[in-house]
Amino acid sequence: MRKIITISREFGSGGRAIGMHVAEKLGYAFYDREIIDMAAKESGLSPDFIAKTEQNLSSGWLYNLLLGTSYAGTTAGSGQQLGQANLPLADQVFNAERKIILGLTDKPCVIVGRCADYILRTSDTVQSEELLNIFIYANIEDKVKAIMERLNVDEKVAKKTVIQVDKRRANHYNTFTEDTWGDRKNYDLLINSSTLGIDQTIEMLTEFIKKA
Amino acid sequence: MRKIITISREFGSGGRAIGMHVAEKLGYAFYDREIIDMAAKESGLSPDFIAKTEQNLSSGWLYNLLLGTSYAGTTAGSGQQLGQANLPLADQVFNAERKIILGLTDKPCVIVGRCADYILRTSDTVQSEELLNIFIYANIEDKVKAIMERLNVDEKVAKKTVIQVDKRRANHYNTFTEDTWGDRKNYDLLINSSTLGIDQTIEMLTEFIKKA
Repeated sequence: MRKIITISREFGSGGRAIGMHVAEKLGYAFYDREIIDMAAKESGLSPDFIAKTEQNLSSGWLYNLLLGTSYAGTTAGSGQQLGQANLPLADQVFNAERKIILGLTDKPCVIVGRCADYILRTSDTVQSEELLNIFIYANIEDKVKAIMERLNVDEKVAKKTVIQVDKRRANHYNTFTEDTWGDRKNYDLLINSSTLGIDQTIEMLTEFIKKA
Repeated sequence: MRKIITISREFGSGGRAIGMHVAEKLGYAFYDREIIDMAAKESGLSPDFIAKTEQNLSSGWLYNLLLGTSYAGTTAGSGQQLGQANLPLADQVFNAERKIILGLTDKPCVIVGRCADYILRTSDTVQSEELLNIFIYANIEDKVKAIMERLNVDEKVAKKTVIQVDKRRANHYNTFTEDTWGDRKNYDLLINSSTLGIDQTIEMLTEFIKKA
């Protein structure tokens, strides 16, 4: 059976890396930020604009921390400000990503973030028994530690970032779907990566997907 | 390492049966309604009174459906009415169960319900790495089907019961703890038993506990 796995994750939980390794072990395609570039081509919006729109980042410290370097110099063609007034643009981004995500399901794959669980659950392109929605979270101490290392920031900034990013992820999801981010009814499994650690969580999820 | 497993579960998700089989596979002790009888001895309250207090059942259709037969004739010694005015009695029940639960942790065990995750997480008797908190839920259709069979009721009554029991479980938990029932931060794993079915969910949880 064709299996489409979506991974939603708390910032700093290791969810992205876990998803990547699970895809590798299963020989599945893996999509995360690739979707941004695909949606940019699809929509004519710049990757930078899409990346910041996804996370409700118009500017400021969080923007600089998360996107300041990764998409530097790629802002041509994008609206530079994003606020309430630009909601139609945010809709354009969501719709472009939605179209890309619906087009990825012709072979087994792992898709990270981007409301993919909702988009696929409410579409006709995937049967419910083909779709597995997984949510990865972690203890706050572990998330803060991971972000301190990943972004090379101190504990205070890391904690603020962890809290802010997840707030924005939740807001984005709750705005564009009829469901609530992290609500168990959207998922087949929610796993705390602090309990087993990253490697054993990868093993566990690989087993879960094989059994399903 | 000594492992203490708590299982919280939606009504009709098969959580109790899953916990029992997991305990059996691992050779762990298993506690569910046994705690009612132990707490009765501890407190001098009747098992019937404890059972209905746990679920905020004073009387009515849900009481008759769930407890009408199981503890018939054992009400001697209990207060017959339970309402807001009797909150101190509800506290007595919680405290008696709490004391019992804290006394169960000298050997590996699986404990179902009764806010055991909160009671053990906030106590000194169990180290955090010895404690695994699991939440089992299921799709509404499967829960309704399970309760139709278990209680021999029609679909409408089963659905109403499923919704009511979980509301009361949530109320009870939210009243007696500082946390929210079903909130992922309280648990190491939340699993939808509809995805793999009961047998494979038992396998999965057994593996999870072994790895932890």
